[in-house]
Amino acid sequence: MKVRVLVRLKPGILDVQGAAVKRALAGLGFAEVTDLRVGKVIDVELGAATAEDGRARVGEMCQRLLANPVLEDYTIEMADDLAPRRAVR
Amino acid sequence: MKVRVLVRLKPGILDVQGAAVKRALAGLGFAEVTDLRVGKVIDVELGAATAEDGRARVGEMCQRLLANPVLEDYTIEMADDLAPRRAVR
Repeated sequence: MKVRVLVRLKPGILDVQGAAVKRALAGLGFAEVTDLRVGKVIDVELGAATAEDGRARVGEMCQRLLANPVLEDYTIEMADDLAPRRAVR
Repeated sequence: MKVRVLVRLKPGILDVQGAAVKRALAGLGFAEVTDLRVGKVIDVELGAATAEDGRARVGEMCQRLLANPVLEDYTIEMADDLAPRRAVR
């Protein structure tokens, strides 16, 4: 089962990397960018009996290792949740 | 308009960070993880007349700055594409 974890800085935390990228984009002529934040995507493939089990285990992984609960929020997306109707590569 | 960009190493490229995280998870008892890869999520908020314009501009940003085309693939997801039916924070 494939599970996607998104780990992002909490809203109040200054995102230095995002600010730097936004500034660089403005320098390249992309002045329409009003906000930009950078986080991590972690694609996990794991064996689990049910989707619920898989989600619960990945939640444990986030709490124990993948995210820093002081600074970061995480979102768990199962393959079935996503089903992007149009995603351009 | 909110646009999400996922930047990941191309499939053939060794993901050292992902391998390290997978190993650390195994050490914590998460032996069911069969594969794990780490990438970047970039949440962009930008002004654009239409969703098509927004997507095209973000595509340009990816090609010029956000992704390294030699090593990385990128995926652009518009807010409307996503609509995760269930995403646990």
